[in-house]
Amino acid sequence: MTPVTSPVRIQATDASDQPERTPQLEDLYRSFEHQLLVPLWTEIGELMPPSPSSRAVPHLWRWQRLRPAAARAGELIPVGRGGERRAMALANPGLGGQPFATPTLWAAIQYLNPNEDAPVHRHTQHAFRFVVEGEGVWTVVNGDPVAMRRGDFLPQAGWNWHGHHNRSGHAMAWIDGLDIPFQHYTGATFFEFGPDEVETREAPDRSRSERLWAHPGLRPLTRLRPTPSTPLLAYRWEYTDRALSEQLALEAEGEPVTVEPGHAAVRYTNPTTGGDVLTTLRCEFHRLAPDTGTAPRQEVGSSVFQVFDGTGEVTVGNTSWTVERGDLFVVPSWQPLVLATEDGLDLFRFTDAPIFERLHLDRSHQERPGA
Amino acid sequence: MTPVTSPVRIQATDASDQPERTPQLEDLYRSFEHQLLVPLWTEIGELMPPSPSSRAVPHLWRWQRLRPAAARAGELIPVGRGGERRAMALANPGLGGQPFATPTLWAAIQYLNPNEDAPVHRHTQHAFRFVVEGEGVWTVVNGDPVAMRRGDFLPQAGWNWHGHHNRSGHAMAWIDGLDIPFQHYTGATFFEFGPDEVETREAPDRSRSERLWAHPGLRPLTRLRPTPSTPLLAYRWEYTDRALSEQLALEAEGEPVTVEPGHAAVRYTNPTTGGDVLTTLRCEFHRLAPDTGTAPRQEVGSSVFQVFDGTGEVTVGNTSWTVERGDLFVVPSWQPLVLATEDGLDLFRFTDAPIFERLHLDRSHQERPGA
Amino acid sequence: MTPVTSPVRIQATDASDQPERTPQLEDLYRSFEHQLLVPLWTEIGELMPPSPSSRAVPHLWRWQRLRPAAARAGELIPVGRGGERRAMALANPGLGGQPFATPTLWAAIQYLNPNEDAPVHRHTQHAFRFVVEGEGVWTVVNGDPVAMRRGDFLPQAGWNWHGHHNRSGHAMAWIDGLDIPFQHYTGATFFEFGPDEVETREAPDRSRSERLWAHPGLRPLTRLRPTPSTPLLAYRWEYTDRALSEQLALEAEGEPVTVEPGHAAVRYTNPTTGGDVLTTLRCEFHRLAPDTGTAPRQEVGSSVFQVFDGTGEVTVGNTSWTVERGDLFVVPSWQPLVLATEDGLDLFRFTDAPIFERLHLDRSHQERPGA
Amino acid sequence: MTPVTSPVRIQATDASDQPERTPQLEDLYRSFEHQLLVPLWTEIGELMPPSPSSRAVPHLWRWQRLRPAAARAGELIPVGRGGERRAMALANPGLGGQPFATPTLWAAIQYLNPNEDAPVHRHTQHAFRFVVEGEGVWTVVNGDPVAMRRGDFLPQAGWNWHGHHNRSGHAMAWIDGLDIPFQHYTGATFFEFGPDEVETREAPDRSRSERLWAHPGLRPLTRLRPTPSTPLLAYRWEYTDRALSEQLALEAEGEPVTVEPGHAAVRYTNPTTGGDVLTTLRCEFHRLAPDTGTAPRQEVGSSVFQVFDGTGEVTVGNTSWTVERGDLFVVPSWQPLVLATEDGLDLFRFTDAPIFERLHLDRSHQERPGA
Repeated sequence: MTPVTSPVRIQATDASDQPERTPQLEDLYRSFEHQLLVPLWTEIGELMPPSPSSRAVPHLWRWQRLRPAAARAGELIPVGRGGERRAMALANPGLGGQPFATPTLWAAIQYLNPNEDAPVHRHTQHAFRFVVEGEGVWTVVNGDPVAMRRGDFLPQAGWNWHGHHNRSGHAMAWIDGLDIPFQHYTGATFFEFGPDEVETREAPDRSRSERLWAHPGLRPLTRLRPTPSTPLLAYRWEYTDRALSEQLALEAEGEPVTVEPGHAAVRYTNPTTGGDVLTTLRCEFHRLAPDTGTAPRQEVGSSVFQVFDGTGEVTVGNTSWTVERGDLFVVPSWQPLVLATEDGLDLFRFTDAPIFERLHLDRSHQERPGA
Repeated sequence: MTPVTSPVRIQATDASDQPERTPQLEDLYRSFEHQLLVPLWTEIGELMPPSPSSRAVPHLWRWQRLRPAAARAGELIPVGRGGERRAMALANPGLGGQPFATPTLWAAIQYLNPNEDAPVHRHTQHAFRFVVEGEGVWTVVNGDPVAMRRGDFLPQAGWNWHGHHNRSGHAMAWIDGLDIPFQHYTGATFFEFGPDEVETREAPDRSRSERLWAHPGLRPLTRLRPTPSTPLLAYRWEYTDRALSEQLALEAEGEPVTVEPGHAAVRYTNPTTGGDVLTTLRCEFHRLAPDTGTAPRQEVGSSVFQVFDGTGEVTVGNTSWTVERGDLFVVPSWQPLVLATEDGLDLFRFTDAPIFERLHLDRSHQERPGA
Repeated sequence: MTPVTSPVRIQATDASDQPERTPQLEDLYRSFEHQLLVPLWTEIGELMPPSPSSRAVPHLWRWQRLRPAAARAGELIPVGRGGERRAMALANPGLGGQPFATPTLWAAIQYLNPNEDAPVHRHTQHAFRFVVEGEGVWTVVNGDPVAMRRGDFLPQAGWNWHGHHNRSGHAMAWIDGLDIPFQHYTGATFFEFGPDEVETREAPDRSRSERLWAHPGLRPLTRLRPTPSTPLLAYRWEYTDRALSEQLALEAEGEPVTVEPGHAAVRYTNPTTGGDVLTTLRCEFHRLAPDTGTAPRQEVGSSVFQVFDGTGEVTVGNTSWTVERGDLFVVPSWQPLVLATEDGLDLFRFTDAPIFERLHLDRSHQERPGA
Repeated sequence: MTPVTSPVRIQATDASDQPERTPQLEDLYRSFEHQLLVPLWTEIGELMPPSPSSRAVPHLWRWQRLRPAAARAGELIPVGRGGERRAMALANPGLGGQPFATPTLWAAIQYLNPNEDAPVHRHTQHAFRFVVEGEGVWTVVNGDPVAMRRGDFLPQAGWNWHGHHNRSGHAMAWIDGLDIPFQHYTGATFFEFGPDEVETREAPDRSRSERLWAHPGLRPLTRLRPTPSTPLLAYRWEYTDRALSEQLALEAEGEPVTVEPGHAAVRYTNPTTGGDVLTTLRCEFHRLAPDTGTAPRQEVGSSVFQVFDGTGEVTVGNTSWTVERGDLFVVPSWQPLVLATEDGLDLFRFTDAPIFERLHLDRSHQERPGA
């Protein structure tokens, strides 16, 4: 990734809404370039399109190919100080080779061999892990060891110390989501190294954060101030699965609790505010009942999805794929998304939506199911 | 309860900071009375004391006496339209015979015979039920039947339709908490009658609200707007008990999660905001481990406690009682509270604290444990 | 003002919705009284009316009578430590002789002779002064001297030190508004004495708070944190008058900026939040153009109005008065208010509305002008 | 500006913290490239630096050169539909030729000849104009004509219709600030064309928005809902100048109201919230008294300054310039800024700080004046 700083070059075209290219105009444009000035009138089509036009493109990464690539990295690449993590990021083909799934989102597969430690560090980037298969790793957050198992969602708010440790006899892979591209672009990044090994080898079934926080609607009296990001470090599959099953059961009883027919969904939230689990990242889980199709939906902001279970057809803009367990795909800003399944489909999703909502730049459009 | 409107009468005393009572002054005071004017200088001691001085006094009601009185009412008083509820309110002896536990809080024991319905109505007053013993009643809120069982806390935000139905073969008693005195005093009350019988005889183990909302940190995608009061209609004892046990276990492991040594506590919260469960009422559960004593604590605002389990010594200001299961006591504003127990003590508590916090009038003072 | 604590006495009537008064019932009620219990079913009509039913009643105090009464107090009553202020409060005839304009609001005329000091103190009660006539007094708030002149509104958030000093050769009267009744009832009051004389004899035209804060839309970079109440200590008549004139002029140009035809109004706000000037008190200024009448309006919460200029007809519920400069009147909760004027009417108003809004208990109803 | 989408190319180096480049590793990296994967361990230094490391660099544009370039464009370039504005944007030399002052901020000089109209459009980008010299143009916002004069700040929240019209006999230049780069990068942009000419030729001294809103601390009763961005369309120089003068005068009287000795500053705010004037842009005005120097200050987020009056020395990181009226300079994220002046310096500033504050990513560091 080598960003090149280049001089200004004005792309004056002969387009109908551009002034005629006279020698005087050429002189003017040369003087602009010399002064590091760029006219709006030559760039407005690119800069101010009628609706969002992202450089990112829809793309799919197959778990069946990612997983062996990660395993091969497990053989060749050590994990340690400096490189910090054996993580391989999805690089959207529209983004010029940068390791970014979308302009704002980082998505990577991370891989840890038996008994390996990923060293402790902290950074302002918000992060989470989501586990599509396996178990055996504990992520240790500020000294609190958090088990990672299939279906678990493990948020990691910025500036908390964290490292990972594989306690099991087999390797484990999972996905990491972060706001690295957003913080990189806007210049907000701080980073510090911690110890090379995690602080504790304890491997409890439930983290201390869960024992303190994972009680519905109950809050410890000693933790009453809202925190911008969640203090709960694990959202277990058992609860997510049950919440989705109940939504579909309530729908069957006639209650209007689903997003659309056959489409249940939950958002992971910060129990101290009821809002998004991380200040820059929205994380959700969607379940489509068998024989369900969604209405096309457009949103400002980009998403990454991972298939957790089942199979289905995904259409993003003009691109369609058949997807199965572990597959990851990207939905750029304002591209219409349609999901369909015959045998049921479980999907994890994360987006940059909180950025737009907090700045009042959010918009969405969904066609009516019957329209 | 007969409020009497009386003419103004100025209590001019000979106190040292009062002007001498000359005939001219007497004339002035008579003209004030005639004009419906009252001087500040004669009243300031009462109106603006150095610290809060409530008319309410500390008082204890024994469950062993309340329960039989309620049962006798069950024999003599029908439940139905007009009277609405077989509820008997605690009348603080300092409040002139009004049925108010404190100037802002209503606390009552309610009693329902087998197969009785308490008719459906709605009101702007916020309410909850807390169950110290028994089961068999379903409260039906906007058509959603909610089971009531020992240890459960069942909030009832203002302006929702609700009635109760006893499905069991035995009578059931519980306590109601409301903000009736506050809304009565300030003039905010609206009330409407609904059907005479509850809408449904269904008696499910879990209400629809729990199936939708009682998943820690998870929020249905179709219910993303914050609501001022909680949408969750039941906070089950199973969760409360576990949260408190975990706090004491974490404390034993060295984690600073308790209010003070041996004193665990949770607040019931609105999952859409992380804040108080009802906009005017704060509700909490406190657990004291065996051989625990609390440091004296003063707060602006008044509280009502009910002993859920165990025994202990309670001191409010200069008054002390030995308490046991079901006993209810009142802590007026700014009166110091001390709790102590040898064999452990579980306490439900509700207060008007959200009123003061939202108006930035809250204050508290707690002596340091070792001080 | 002597609150009497009386034993509980149950007002069991023979009304149709009450159980028949048998000897057993009488026994039950006696046992309730003995236990300090009051049934809901005998009190519900009073406690839970269909709409707000305040004990306060509409009432008018004439400035032409208040002003001389205050002047007479100026001759007979010294101002000093203990009595603190030469203030005479409006006592609503429905509130049993208490010096309260409404259940939540205190309104008083205060009077200061030439060269007198009202001693320095502070209290949690929020306060303001509004000047209907005269000038010459400086109120000194945390050492900042603030001139008081006709038309000025001078807020005084709780817990700030303040005293008053008359620098002129003539006496001055103004009105004070506070939330004394609310804080007295709920038990939130703290009070402290300061020096007997104000800290400074400076008498600048503009206070330091105005020099720092009274610039529209501009905020000092050193004062960026929101404060619950306003840091601006004077809202000058010049600005209020101009804002109202502009509203009427804009209306005449076809802009929909008035409350209703001919009815301009501004709210005094906290520049750090855009919200109410004091956390418990809303303060507004209303101007009716000549030949204007308002549509009936009902609100939860009570108000006190003072006529600043002009004359008009005021109707509150079933009571009507012709009003003129200085007259004060009370609108109890939910009582319909109608204003009408032939020659124009300027009105200052304050209410307890922020209490209800912050607790989500606010409601209002206004008939359509043409309805 | 031609973004190029390129295949992934992994920059595997021989740096000490990178694994040895064996043939197997080369094979792995080739397979990553083929799969559109990028390792974290080769990029982490660039992506996660210890503190923010922006691609933007400090740079200065001289008004003395900008102004003639704009005038020459006035001769050669028509203003009309399609090109929309005769605006020339500052292109930071670190940003690869893009017309962006910083990664998030657009700053341009705009130029309008006598009697020209800049056509009406609207867009989600937030914008403002700031006038360093001249007058004669009215910007028409939703039909409200707003005069533009030296020293005025004219915010323009997203999605409001607006065009400009030069009513005077001479050309006028000013600067535009927008969040174009931020919305372009994140994909949030919507745009719509309006009429080719502004809706009105009226040229009032004060806009309707000012007549309704520019009264300190007063709010129209018909405009009580907070709006995310300001409803006030002009912040006049008269008020800004007075606020700054008062701060310096208060400082001279011993009041701690300035940012640091001799350094006064105001923030332009939204009167409905007290917060930033636009949701993504913070705008401020700073005044340094003669012989003042500021302590070095670092902030997350980038700024653009324009000198309004006076002269001084500006140091950003390792770069220093002597500046005078109209000069524009850029401060990239976390680069230390120092200002100094002998004869006094007035500076307008805008930044992307609200983005970071709303996402809890803000940080700053200022050395103590004496340190």
